[in-house]
Amino acid sequence: MYDAIVIGAGPAGLTAGIYLARGGAKTLIIEKESIGGQIASSPLVENYPGFKCISGSELVDMLYEQVISLGVDIEIGEVKSIENGEIKKVFVDDTVYETKTVIIATGVKHRKLNLENEDEFIGSGIHFCATCDGPFYKNKVVGVIGGANSAVINAIYLASLCDKVYLIYRGKDLKCEKKLKEKVSKLKNVEILLNSNIIQYLGVDKLDKIVVKDLIGKREIQVDGIFLSIGMDPETSIKLNLNKTENNYYDSVDTLTNLPGILVAGDCRNKNIRQVTTAVSDGTVAAINALNYLQN
Amino acid sequence: MYDAIVIGAGPAGLTAGIYLARGGAKTLIIEKESIGGQIASSPLVENYPGFKCISGSELVDMLYEQVISLGVDIEIGEVKSIENGEIKKVFVDDTVYETKTVIIATGVKHRKLNLENEDEFIGSGIHFCATCDGPFYKNKVVGVIGGANSAVINAIYLASLCDKVYLIYRGKDLKCEKKLKEKVSKLKNVEILLNSNIIQYLGVDKLDKIVVKDLIGKREIQVDGIFLSIGMDPETSIKLNLNKTENNYYDSVDTLTNLPGILVAGDCRNKNIRQVTTAVSDGTVAAINALNYLQN
Repeated sequence: MYDAIVIGAGPAGLTAGIYLARGGAKTLIIEKESIGGQIASSPLVENYPGFKCISGSELVDMLYEQVISLGVDIEIGEVKSIENGEIKKVFVDDTVYETKTVIIATGVKHRKLNLENEDEFIGSGIHFCATCDGPFYKNKVVGVIGGANSAVINAIYLASLCDKVYLIYRGKDLKCEKKLKEKVSKLKNVEILLNSNIIQYLGVDKLDKIVVKDLIGKREIQVDGIFLSIGMDPETSIKLNLNKTENNYYDSVDTLTNLPGILVAGDCRNKNIRQVTTAVSDGTVAAINALNYLQN
Repeated sequence: MYDAIVIGAGPAGLTAGIYLARGGAKTLIIEKESIGGQIASSPLVENYPGFKCISGSELVDMLYEQVISLGVDIEIGEVKSIENGEIKKVFVDDTVYETKTVIIATGVKHRKLNLENEDEFIGSGIHFCATCDGPFYKNKVVGVIGGANSAVINAIYLASLCDKVYLIYRGKDLKCEKKLKEKVSKLKNVEILLNSNIIQYLGVDKLDKIVVKDLIGKREIQVDGIFLSIGMDPETSIKLNLNKTENNYYDSVDTLTNLPGILVAGDCRNKNIRQVTTAVSDGTVAAINALNYLQN
């Protein structure tokens, strides 16, 4: 029996682990894919206070070590459903864990363009994580799709590896931070295509061309691979009667949900701003709320 | 003319500086006393994600360097009042700064016992900051007043320097994290006095005894110095028509106040949990709100 089970090992979940363990709660963190969540795949983090410049994976390593050193258990597995009650049952593949409180910090998942052949080409020319998969495209030609911070950060990173990077965005102007825009605009091997949409993937077995439509017309562009950076949807599919917003995020006030002893933290919950800083804040608040629940 | 002036250089204010500068805003941070705020005086920070164990002053150095490297101006001075308007005027001693937005992150100030001679003995036996002033009491006898995390952290730290530490708390049990309680309870040179209040300071020119009252009666205890760790009050005395809560914290929703273009972040605003993690989150949210305000 655990005092607390945290679902998701991104910055929110790992921070919850730190606070729970320091508060004396026997804690298990369950992660579906990879420790660190979204941040693990960010080539460069420059806006987390305390680190002027660090790769996402280095930051994750430090968080992980901090959590492990406090005696928190971590398991890899997918939580399918939770049975609520004073003792809560968490169903993971073939195992059932019992716990007094649950913190759901499942984050968000990458959005796709939903074009023909997309699922087939994922991993064979279509990628989401520039840090993970960028090095496969050394001295090649890639496209980055999107215009917000994550897309531009990926384009800047890939420009350091690849011969040529197309940054393809449907809007009329990049919507990233000014500093990033200045930086990417100065890179000679990045071509920024605005008002542009991908409308077709071409290739046999592997993506090798994209069809891009802009205000003038459509044209084929040869690429060795593309990186989709067009946003995320919340990972809120665990079976459980939690209230959600119309966009499918968990509804909560200060991480508290409609179910006592079940809290939500990080990107998967309703909030306006999703950054590592707001995730670690959520993890803190959810853990302290869970500790208060355990004491009463 | 600045795009943004941040008042207070604690974790909230410094984080706001990072996000503002990265968003292209010409930014000035004004700090009354010392860079880093409360955290600068914490001997040990073990719950800020990314650092397993770091002194508050080291963490502050890293934050400061990060902010400076982004080109943010920092001035030391006390803001007395702000004149609101489309252009806001910030009055600091004899200088007036003009800015389009203001983020107030003034934090909290240490609470005192309000006993006779207290103000006279502050700095001469009565202290607030164990990191700053603890080393003066090497191999001596000190008292720490309080029972929450900060008091117990200070007691643990001082126990490593001093011959003897009295941890004096009015409650019937320490209200700190379990880990900290376990740690302090094991220290042979820490004596924990519960249900105990200081009712008098004794000494000539310098504190040398305290009178402590508990359930049995009152007695004099010889001490070379004491550290008050009994909480804080918000620093919200800047002249400006901002709404406040009944406890005198700035009232806000997601850092937005009743005055457009004026935001609040960190410990000085209404919220339930005050940690470095929640401060950096506030700084982030306030800065992004300020950047949005500047764009419209």
